Amino acid sequence: MRPARRSKVDPFIVMDVMEAARRAEAAGRRIIHMEVGQPGTPAPAGARAALARAMEAGALGYTVALGLPELRARIARLYGAWYGVDLDPARVVVTPGSSGAFILAFTALFDAGDRVGIGAPGYPSYRQILHALDLVPVDIETSAENRLQPAPGDLAGRDLAGLLVASPGNPSGTMLDRARLAALIDATHQAKGQFISDEIYHGLHYETRAISALEITDDCYVINSFSKYFSMTGWRVGWMVVPEDHVRTVERLAQNLFICPPHASQIAALAAMDCVEELEANRAVYARNRALMLEGLPRAGFDRIAPPDGAFYVYADVTHLTDDSRAFAAEILDHAGVAVTPGLDFDPGRGAGTLRFSYARATADIEEGLARLTDFMAAR
Amino acid sequence: MRPARRSKVDPFIVMDVMEAARRAEAAGRRIIHMEVGQPGTPAPAGARAALARAMEAGALGYTVALGLPELRARIARLYGAWYGVDLDPARVVVTPGSSGAFILAFTALFDAGDRVGIGAPGYPSYRQILHALDLVPVDIETSAENRLQPAPGDLAGRDLAGLLVASPGNPSGTMLDRARLAALIDATHQAKGQFISDEIYHGLHYETRAISALEITDDCYVINSFSKYFSMTGWRVGWMVVPEDHVRTVERLAQNLFICPPHASQIAALAAMDCVEELEANRAVYARNRALMLEGLPRAGFDRIAPPDGAFYVYADVTHLTDDSRAFAAEILDHAGVAVTPGLDFDPGRGAGTLRFSYARATADIEEGLARLTDFMAAR
Repeated sequence: MRPARRSKVDPFIVMDVMEAARRAEAAGRRIIHMEVGQPGTPAPAGARAALARAMEAGALGYTVALGLPELRARIARLYGAWYGVDLDPARVVVTPGSSGAFILAFTALFDAGDRVGIGAPGYPSYRQILHALDLVPVDIETSAENRLQPAPGDLAGRDLAGLLVASPGNPSGTMLDRARLAALIDATHQAKGQFISDEIYHGLHYETRAISALEITDDCYVINSFSKYFSMTGWRVGWMVVPEDHVRTVERLAQNLFICPPHASQIAALAAMDCVEELEANRAVYARNRALMLEGLPRAGFDRIAPPDGAFYVYADVTHLTDDSRAFAAEILDHAGVAVTPGLDFDPGRGAGTLRFSYARATADIEEGLARLTDFMAAR
Repeated sequence: MRPARRSKVDPFIVMDVMEAARRAEAAGRRIIHMEVGQPGTPAPAGARAALARAMEAGALGYTVALGLPELRARIARLYGAWYGVDLDPARVVVTPGSSGAFILAFTALFDAGDRVGIGAPGYPSYRQILHALDLVPVDIETSAENRLQPAPGDLAGRDLAGLLVASPGNPSGTMLDRARLAALIDATHQAKGQFISDEIYHGLHYETRAISALEITDDCYVINSFSKYFSMTGWRVGWMVVPEDHVRTVERLAQNLFICPPHASQIAALAAMDCVEELEANRAVYARNRALMLEGLPRAGFDRIAPPDGAFYVYADVTHLTDDSRAFAAEILDHAGVAVTPGLDFDPGRGAGTLRFSYARATADIEEGLARLTDFMAAR
């Protein structure tokens, strides 16, 4: 049996780091995990309690494809609370994680061969999901001047059927302010492209809040998730907001592609939305970690960093330290016992000169990690 | 914004039945649900208890993409117990439901434009998922002589890149015996096609057990799920067994397309596999219901039925009663208060002359439904 052409997706380079870290831990070494892209905290206690009750009360069979109506309504309310946007719950689609939302968005909007712009650096799975769906990912190499985000001028001559933007971004943590986001949306629409806004790190900001594309236009797809701010990665539940006249199309796709998002996860997610105190306590930990990173990383020698407006990452240019971020990450793991992510997963063209540091774990780990990185760099 | 061509998938006709049933119930009427494709029972008590414990013990973050190693090992053991097949756990891929398995299988095996054979009648989402992935579903109209399953002679001249077969089938409940399944696999391989076996209804048999494609060849994809026998539809967890040399390809696709199956559901699924007593009690209910259906449906006048070897469906030819199964189903709902599924979802060509009756609910409901159907037909 021969695999299909579109099945040939790139491996994650971070997996090699994670496997090496696992081997080191199996050999008895303590490793500090700055490579992970997820909170160390569980789903909020209120979410777990709600599910424990629901498991005893009902069968938790299929839900309707668009998700539990009360969850869709609660998500719509969030847009009022967070952005002052009055959102019709009918436009909210609950999805199996943001992963499921990408599959729905790409199949709803693009046909085989269509070209879709994504920023580099960016979340590696954008590229691979597009490829697996016989679409053409078009890397837009972003610049430090543009805060590692695409800019309107980047679209010219690329023949894009759509543009996918994340603010705050992964791995950069950088955000687009309202004017930049509006200009990008406008440029995309001028070029007859579809605009998709990945807002998975919304809620995790430390100075000004992130702007939602829905504050600017209804003519876009917005993707979000319970994984990050709501601390529910493994639950695989997210959502998407689509234009009113796309709801039926997305509903039919969702019915067939997924049947429904996990029922148990939807119940936990609904309750999680009211666990504000616990979630804000998590965010306070990230804020503390971020302050430590912004002080400690430059002191250690990682001083060329993108402005970390949100999420829980710091993306560092290390071209003055190495021309092989993969080997450098292996060296850091080996000598300092700190796992970090080489930039190659995020930016095929320039990632040999970058690293991503995550500060999603406990503050004590961040302190220990920074101390180790400082010693490592001093001895280098 | 204009939806993509591949986003135009057909609506489920059964949704109209379900909505009409919901309206009737909202108006105070009692409806018997013979249209549903899922157990009325919850996940086994042991599965729910295991999850309740796990929620208090750990963060339930992402698992590895192929699923929890202990779950993969436990699934591999099932092949020994059910089929006498010695299966390497490394070939087991835990998926977000069988839905996720179809997406992985189709993207791993087929490129845009490839033609994939599916039996008619068959599970409607096969056709729609293929279409959404820019593949070409090729309906193979099956015959009563072949137990509503494809036969080797059906493949000739169709230029198929693959064949997808379900035994027991939905909506038919019919099974392929070992000789027929082996002949189909052989014919598919002779034609250089890939063979995919949907075994989601395995475990739900009432006379002889179902044959797995893995008893015949390793050169195939086998898809299964915790939804039916294990009574966990809403949990969205299934699995796939792939040839050894496809594991890495499918792993990379799964990493990018789904990250992982729901962690909570995997924990529940692992525990469910040891809840044999409860699951066999569920099966005994289906067996009793099936016996009632096989006696009661013909007595009511639905006497042209496919041999219901497994699953929890009876598929009836009603061409002597109507040439419009959709209107007929609406009439049955209106007059008898019994919701049934018109065959059009399963067989675009011939479904105007068929109905699917599900017996997945409680026996008292089946008894009541059959009494109502008998009265309805007598008065017609």
